[in-house]
Amino acid sequence: MEFLVRAENRLPVDTPDEERARLKKAERSRADELRAVGALKRLWRVPGRNATIGLYETADATELHDALASLPMFPWMDITVEAVATHPQEQ
Amino acid sequence: MEFLVRAENRLPVDTPDEERARLKKAERSRADELRAVGALKRLWRVPGRNATIGLYETADATELHDALASLPMFPWMDITVEAVATHPQEQ
Amino acid sequence: MEFLVRAENRLPVDTPDEERARLKKAERSRADELRAVGALKRLWRVPGRNATIGLYETADATELHDALASLPMFPWMDITVEAVATHPQEQ
Amino acid sequence: MEFLVRAENRLPVDTPDEERARLKKAERSRADELRAVGALKRLWRVPGRNATIGLYETADATELHDALASLPMFPWMDITVEAVATHPQEQ
Amino acid sequence: MEFLVRAENRLPVDTPDEERARLKKAERSRADELRAVGALKRLWRVPGRNATIGLYETADATELHDALASLPMFPWMDITVEAVATHPQEQ
Amino acid sequence: MEFLVRAENRLPVDTPDEERARLKKAERSRADELRAVGALKRLWRVPGRNATIGLYETADATELHDALASLPMFPWMDITVEAVATHPQEQ
Amino acid sequence: MEFLVRAENRLPVDTPDEERARLKKAERSRADELRAVGALKRLWRVPGRNATIGLYETADATELHDALASLPMFPWMDITVEAVATHPQEQ
Amino acid sequence: MEFLVRAENRLPVDTPDEERARLKKAERSRADELRAVGALKRLWRVPGRNATIGLYETADATELHDALASLPMFPWMDITVEAVATHPQEQ
Amino acid sequence: MEFLVRAENRLPVDTPDEERARLKKAERSRADELRAVGALKRLWRVPGRNATIGLYETADATELHDALASLPMFPWMDITVEAVATHPQEQ
Amino acid sequence: MEFLVRAENRLPVDTPDEERARLKKAERSRADELRAVGALKRLWRVPGRNATIGLYETADATELHDALASLPMFPWMDITVEAVATHPQEQ
Repeated sequence: MEFLVRAENRLPVDTPDEERARLKKAERSRADELRAVGALKRLWRVPGRNATIGLYETADATELHDALASLPMFPWMDITVEAVATHPQEQ
Repeated sequence: MEFLVRAENRLPVDTPDEERARLKKAERSRADELRAVGALKRLWRVPGRNATIGLYETADATELHDALASLPMFPWMDITVEAVATHPQEQ
Repeated sequence: MEFLVRAENRLPVDTPDEERARLKKAERSRADELRAVGALKRLWRVPGRNATIGLYETADATELHDALASLPMFPWMDITVEAVATHPQEQ
Repeated sequence: MEFLVRAENRLPVDTPDEERARLKKAERSRADELRAVGALKRLWRVPGRNATIGLYETADATELHDALASLPMFPWMDITVEAVATHPQEQ
Repeated sequence: MEFLVRAENRLPVDTPDEERARLKKAERSRADELRAVGALKRLWRVPGRNATIGLYETADATELHDALASLPMFPWMDITVEAVATHPQEQ
Repeated sequence: MEFLVRAENRLPVDTPDEERARLKKAERSRADELRAVGALKRLWRVPGRNATIGLYETADATELHDALASLPMFPWMDITVEAVATHPQEQ
Repeated sequence: MEFLVRAENRLPVDTPDEERARLKKAERSRADELRAVGALKRLWRVPGRNATIGLYETADATELHDALASLPMFPWMDITVEAVATHPQEQ
Repeated sequence: MEFLVRAENRLPVDTPDEERARLKKAERSRADELRAVGALKRLWRVPGRNATIGLYETADATELHDALASLPMFPWMDITVEAVATHPQEQ
Repeated sequence: MEFLVRAENRLPVDTPDEERARLKKAERSRADELRAVGALKRLWRVPGRNATIGLYETADATELHDALASLPMFPWMDITVEAVATHPQEQ
Repeated sequence: MEFLVRAENRLPVDTPDEERARLKKAERSRADELRAVGALKRLWRVPGRNATIGLYETADATELHDALASLPMFPWMDITVEAVATHPQEQ
């Protein structure tokens, strides 16, 4: 099923550049894997914020949590999840 | 997967008693069916309100919506759904 | 550009069935047109609610407003729009 | 009586791994004890968050507070409690 | 156990005076009974509003709900309940 | 007049135990004095939180502020005050 | 003591002009009386709204409630009261 | 000085078309006058809503209120006003 | 024109006493100057909080900002401003 | 298209004066460039706050994000963006 996932990244402003770069690269790499397995279907940036909205598809909320928790930035992310149902127009 | 479902019943105060009784009985009957198929696992009353919190288990959010929309009181209910994941302590 | 559009449908509960059916059919028809021109890309149902979340793509907010206002249910809808930016991972 | 208890864990991100592991193990152990005495009946994870929703059953709010305060992670948890009543369908 | 109960009375402004008087008298009478059995311990008025805050003591949330639902004004009241624990200073 | 006072205690988690104990003891001592003069009439614990709800009676909001500011924990407390009126049922 | 009182006037838009005029005149008259006795000290209009902010001075919240409830528009007003203390700079 | 003014139009859905058209035309006409005298400087539509955000410039909040209250749709509008200051970059 | 200004003082709890005393004295001194020129007309304390509500009168929001920013405590204050209009009863 | 952009500047109070001055100057310089290319059309100060409201015009939300992220103060800013549509009165 699909979920809309809003994630605010609270990585401290004073994080050293190299650590930030390392995390960003690892985040991108893990996100690519999640895309490859079909868990992450779309990702938008919230304009003006270090935040994203993602469209995920996983078997259930437990699998979704595991996917999100596998992201290297997870410890600094403030995430809210909204379960969405298929609309009759798309069935 | 499991969902916590909060439902405020907005049936107007001036609904005729017999209509109210008919709806209540039909609601109970449909809820019993949802329990029988395992969709509705627990139901609590929010004290002081014409509102409930239910623990549902369905395949996904689409099946959950269909279950909720099948309740006779659905047109008057203000419902919010929260998808919950299995906690490692219970796996 | 893309927009996430949340729409709560406030059509009164006591709307006559035939009027409701007529509106629903017209809504579906207009939505199909918006899909055909690429304005409406995805539509989800918010589980438990007479509400949807849509992913729209229009030239700008003005064109988006015109698309939304063209929906037959528009007078009864409570809509909030969120502009989303393309994420670097998808560029 | 039963309570729904939402707990956000605010343990700082930079907590040393061993301290984190020690706390987690102690938390699990105390939670097991609360389950054994029937105080903790269910526990869900809020997907995407270091947060849980628990179903507790204690004599009253005072006993509930004592149960929650006995958890090793308590000093870092932001907890909100909702008292729930038995629904007539389950009486 | 004790509960703090906030109740907003939404009785419509255009309720006929005699109906309003009848309800008010019946409300007072039922409240007196709840005081007599120790369920209602204190009642304050929220200044400027047709609203009250009550301190109730009942066995649990289910008994509290029954007490509140027995009030003649209940169908028009918007009630929120907060379970409170005994403070160590008062044990 | 009476006031309902909600106080969240934000004393940092890493406050040394002896400092915490000293403050707690001093808080209890000052609270006892406020009870002795009739300023503090009841105190409840908010279950699951390092927070209280107090029923105070002082001449006015200025005297209430002085009472609250005299508590040793005051610098760490996030307090909200609600003025309550006497209900006709209790006059 | 002093109170800041925010009042939103919810008189229905379709109230007949003469009834509206009568209420407005009566409201003004009662407000003048409250000023004369020193209960109403200042009154501001919230720009763009049928709403006011008033500075009242009464013995306590009970007397304040009686003053507010004596206003002819009271049944249609949504009022929130904030008790304010004297600032040391003004003592 | 300048104000940002958000206005939600709550004109009922079932307002007769001719009355709606009459109001709309009168609103446009009065808005043109407010533009002519420099009170209304910009007007945006909130996409998806029967709502606007306006940039007004008037001597003060009292004059602003008079301008807004002169709009024919005013009785149905839910308006919030935000006073804005000149930024040093524009002085 | 007049403004109601709510200011929460977020000066850290661990600010050294002498620095706190110095700031407080300077704040009082600057406030006296603002009173002398008629910018600050009234000041209330929010009971239970290190917060105030002030009634200011300045030419416009820009002058108000300059007045507030001239207060020595300004860097630690969380301020919200509400523009108020003259009520017809006071014109 | 146009956007209203609210930006709260969370630069820590204890930022060294020279660093603050350097950032402020760089911010001003970059803002001038954004004005020169027509991205930043107006800027207001929120009175009493280290915050601004800006009127931006960019091709879309992605270009807007790039403009905002190019500001030297961006890492400390808490920004919310609202897409606005052209009002028929201005077309």
